[in-house]
Amino acid sequence: MLSLEEKIVHDGLALGTQIVKVDSFLNHQIDVAFLREIGQEFGRLFADKRPTKILTMESSGIGCAIAAAQALGDLPVLFAKKTVPSTMVEDIWYADVKSFTKGTVSRAVVARKFLTAGERVLIIDDFLAHGEAGMGMIEICRQAGAVVVGMGAVIEKEFQGGGARIREALGDGAELHSLAVISQIRDGVISFRQ
Amino acid sequence: MLSLEEKIVHDGLALGTQIVKVDSFLNHQIDVAFLREIGQEFGRLFADKRPTKILTMESSGIGCAIAAAQALGDLPVLFAKKTVPSTMVEDIWYADVKSFTKGTVSRAVVARKFLTAGERVLIIDDFLAHGEAGMGMIEICRQAGAVVVGMGAVIEKEFQGGGARIREALGDGAELHSLAVISQIRDGVISFRQ
Repeated sequence: MLSLEEKIVHDGLALGTQIVKVDSFLNHQIDVAFLREIGQEFGRLFADKRPTKILTMESSGIGCAIAAAQALGDLPVLFAKKTVPSTMVEDIWYADVKSFTKGTVSRAVVARKFLTAGERVLIIDDFLAHGEAGMGMIEICRQAGAVVVGMGAVIEKEFQGGGARIREALGDGAELHSLAVISQIRDGVISFRQ
Repeated sequence: MLSLEEKIVHDGLALGTQIVKVDSFLNHQIDVAFLREIGQEFGRLFADKRPTKILTMESSGIGCAIAAAQALGDLPVLFAKKTVPSTMVEDIWYADVKSFTKGTVSRAVVARKFLTAGERVLIIDDFLAHGEAGMGMIEICRQAGAVVVGMGAVIEKEFQGGGARIREALGDGAELHSLAVISQIRDGVISFRQ
């Protein structure tokens, strides 16, 4: 998605060799008009997979998931929670997810009643780095007996290996689409896969 | 907003006398079509205040804020973070926010560069209970020199007193609008203010 690559270069910030900050338009401040374009691109890529629900991870996945859901005919969005609220008394599906950026492990949790066998789930997230969040969401769908029909990431950092992990976990039936794939961050310059 | 009251009664769940769960459509699973109606109602209520930015709190405020932003001509949305990511190296505005449900205090943080003097901020959140999150966001705007032109809550629990606190803090120039105001939760029955 060329407009996204341009926006990353123009508004993003490279930190060291591992981190690109896009908090001016994606995961702190949100450019709502651009978010709609992102959603429409996901809609175009995944409409033929006939998803019935979108699964994402709080917090920064929520906006992307809503935009994709709107483009796919107002699908329900389910966001996994990273802390279990005291109001969440029911049975849960969960997976432990490591954050390389924060150096922590958190438990991603979904109420069982909102993810059931046979649902066709499209997983959406803002970043695909080491693949921990994506693998956690695939695991949650496996527990529920739901079918993962695809995964969409706004920005993939290819050199951190998550894309390969996710593709292997998804198998033949489902596709991973990343709207921008970063191959390298060096000396403040962000390079994209050709 | 009558359709919201009906949805709370139909899909919500009263727990004890203090808690109403709306995680089937608002803060775990999101009914994206209904979220649009919520956004349009906020748009109708606040368009004449000419906001330039929407401020909300992660995670469950994000969807409501995006829907309101879409209804107000694609305003930028800024969501306060409850943990400071290691990628957030710049100067911040912050406020400490107590959660009565979780029994914790967390620091709500916004990067200074995304909230500047003179901006006209509409604060949006999913719940208004004791008013802690709202007071925190008002404090963050005060630090930035931004003008709070209004606050919108999807669901206010009137009996927890946050509405009175927020109205006093907002003063004369700005209005608080809650789309559904719960006056009492008792024996599993949710009552609304007439």
